[in-house]
Amino acid sequence: MSHADDPDLLSRRRFLASAATAATVAATSAVAAPRVLAKSSSTTTNADADTVPFWGEHQAGITTPQQGHVYFAAFDLTTDKRDDVIALLRRWTDASAHLTQGQTAVPLTDDMANPPTDSGEAIGLTPSRLTITFGFGPGMFVTKDGVDRYGIQKHRPEALADLPRFNGDQLVPERTGGDLCIQACANDPQVAFHAVRQLSRLAYDSAKLRWAQPGFMAAQKDKGTPRNLMGFKDGSMNPPINSATMMDQYIWAGNDAGWMNRGSYLVARPIRIALEHWDRMKLGFQEQVMGRHKDTGAPLGSKHEMDGLNLDANDADGNPVIPENSHVRLGAPAVNDGAQVLRRSYSYDNGLSFTAERWPPWRQAMEFDAGLLFLCYQRDPRTGFIKIFENMSKFDMLNQFVTHVGGGVFACPPGAKEGGYVGQSLFELA
Amino acid sequence: MSHADDPDLLSRRRFLASAATAATVAATSAVAAPRVLAKSSSTTTNADADTVPFWGEHQAGITTPQQGHVYFAAFDLTTDKRDDVIALLRRWTDASAHLTQGQTAVPLTDDMANPPTDSGEAIGLTPSRLTITFGFGPGMFVTKDGVDRYGIQKHRPEALADLPRFNGDQLVPERTGGDLCIQACANDPQVAFHAVRQLSRLAYDSAKLRWAQPGFMAAQKDKGTPRNLMGFKDGSMNPPINSATMMDQYIWAGNDAGWMNRGSYLVARPIRIALEHWDRMKLGFQEQVMGRHKDTGAPLGSKHEMDGLNLDANDADGNPVIPENSHVRLGAPAVNDGAQVLRRSYSYDNGLSFTAERWPPWRQAMEFDAGLLFLCYQRDPRTGFIKIFENMSKFDMLNQFVTHVGGGVFACPPGAKEGGYVGQSLFELA
Repeated sequence: MSHADDPDLLSRRRFLASAATAATVAATSAVAAPRVLAKSSSTTTNADADTVPFWGEHQAGITTPQQGHVYFAAFDLTTDKRDDVIALLRRWTDASAHLTQGQTAVPLTDDMANPPTDSGEAIGLTPSRLTITFGFGPGMFVTKDGVDRYGIQKHRPEALADLPRFNGDQLVPERTGGDLCIQACANDPQVAFHAVRQLSRLAYDSAKLRWAQPGFMAAQKDKGTPRNLMGFKDGSMNPPINSATMMDQYIWAGNDAGWMNRGSYLVARPIRIALEHWDRMKLGFQEQVMGRHKDTGAPLGSKHEMDGLNLDANDADGNPVIPENSHVRLGAPAVNDGAQVLRRSYSYDNGLSFTAERWPPWRQAMEFDAGLLFLCYQRDPRTGFIKIFENMSKFDMLNQFVTHVGGGVFACPPGAKEGGYVGQSLFELA
Repeated sequence: MSHADDPDLLSRRRFLASAATAATVAATSAVAAPRVLAKSSSTTTNADADTVPFWGEHQAGITTPQQGHVYFAAFDLTTDKRDDVIALLRRWTDASAHLTQGQTAVPLTDDMANPPTDSGEAIGLTPSRLTITFGFGPGMFVTKDGVDRYGIQKHRPEALADLPRFNGDQLVPERTGGDLCIQACANDPQVAFHAVRQLSRLAYDSAKLRWAQPGFMAAQKDKGTPRNLMGFKDGSMNPPINSATMMDQYIWAGNDAGWMNRGSYLVARPIRIALEHWDRMKLGFQEQVMGRHKDTGAPLGSKHEMDGLNLDANDADGNPVIPENSHVRLGAPAVNDGAQVLRRSYSYDNGLSFTAERWPPWRQAMEFDAGLLFLCYQRDPRTGFIKIFENMSKFDMLNQFVTHVGGGVFACPPGAKEGGYVGQSLFELA
């Protein structure tokens, strides 16, 4: 069958040609070629509420109010050429600028004889507050064999420190590390997945997927702190994202950070939770482990979630009201030289997997392969996550229910200016 | 530390006692003890729009308009006692009646010395249109070894036929079968997961999880047919759920079905899609495979999605416009003696897994472990899914991109009357 002779394909070609024209206009003038034809007024009060700007001083997706879904992916670079990496970052930046505005990653064409430039599953969906955040792992600067593939080893920030081996770590290589990472967040899981899928396609010649984890976060209807799969509110102690002072102090790298100025460091850790084990624990014990009440989220001894931790309070027997090895105490700035990180975690749920429990009664069974994709941002991991988790990994009562099974550390560069690309401040250095 | 002496626990006990009282009222009078304290008016126009009734002639979740998320789970029965199965079905029914109305599975208590009666991660969330649909697999009636554990082998419906081995099946035992299944659907993934988790806890003494798969479906903003991960609209040919005549003809078991009257049969098949392979196919070829246009969803040769299939149309060369081995043709009622099923599928995305491709260039790599959790309901699988898929599994061009990796067939009994339980019509038989 000849495509050229097919009247149906001809009419279709006209249809697509008009779409392609609109898309080309969009690519050159930043007028959106809408992936969305009709916008529902029931989910958004206006167009902007459904769209997060891509260009800016900072990358979006760090201090952006948390969306309902994440698709997190880590990549290994397969090229040895610096120019390939720069070209990839340019393609990724351009595609992200489109995707976050509700467009296809690359303008659609009417070319029937080539693969579609976009896989298409987000056509008809809104932007869904999509953000795409890029990070550079240690392997971008120097391989494990010590090879400086791209001539940037000298620019590796000291803050991009390899994570130490923490007590209890059970890191699986297939879920650990990565030269690059993408955190795609959106209020629709298909929009987040679609974004990473397109970016992966654009990387075929220079990078390949290493590990990935989707996740979700259920929004409380009172807009309060969401609950994780342990049933407790999670994130109560986060520094407020609307405090520029706090964000500058704890989250954004500063003037002394060179090319990372206005960037941030991400630590990502998929943490499996033994839900069946946890569900068998007494309510009183669950609260002792967390150091908080399950219903209100209030610290033990307090009435309200946002009450400060009274770490010095003792009960009638002289024992601390908030136990010494409770999760909330060990994570508190007061016991970590003031360290704070911005947690931006999601629950995950990969169905079931076979598990041999590490505790009595030593069952072996299919169990929920679920937990928390812990994501946290900070100015410097050495005074952030590493500082806090060194103690926590040894003493936290929660550790008998949670296992860190992978993850990595990534330098997330500052945001890109329109026409530039994410990572430009690094690659423009000599 | 003595709990009895702790003033904080005492005040908390009062708090929980009042919640428990409300819950008890709910359990006895069907007045909701709200899991939701404040309902957002932005997501629902009224309370009913967010709640699907549980009790009824049919189980909900079959002809219910499709929600955004599913958690599908299959269980193996571990008890040999008929009374245990009945007790389990009663517990599951009662808990589901609560969960679907936005309550905890079991009323909360203030008992600090026992595990919480509900794991709590749905507290503060709306009902999110939760439906819970139960099904009975062949193993409920007779084990593989021929044991009639519960004295109901004689009541196994002929329509609950074991699925044959289809061409191309690559069924993994850990994702296949099950004596019981639960399909929990909701507009919030945490609500769907929470439901199955509570039901699993209530089954600890008599059943254990065998396999599970979460899934999602992105709602088109024009309320049109959603797109699956192949980027095509999926479900265009579904019989209309608002046609009682069609549902009676094709979906609901009838008077001749005995205890299954007003029930339906579910075939569930997780289908992995080789997305990286599909994405490399020409647009023209993708459309030939599907038999539809990618942008509009219209059948090849037509302009509109809902245009009927013109299976007799030929192009200028005398070849069928809709190819002989295209997906849409092989699934059409016209070539399957009129067979129709109600598809209620969800996309799934389990991150990445290592894959060795079965086709050139025979790559081995981490690939998306994603695809379609195919769910379809019908009056009789022998004249529904089995009829349709026997041909399709041999000839569908799509088969080079999709692999059925598990699944099962389940008899979903009629709905329960308030005070009764799902499956009662079966177990009340002699």
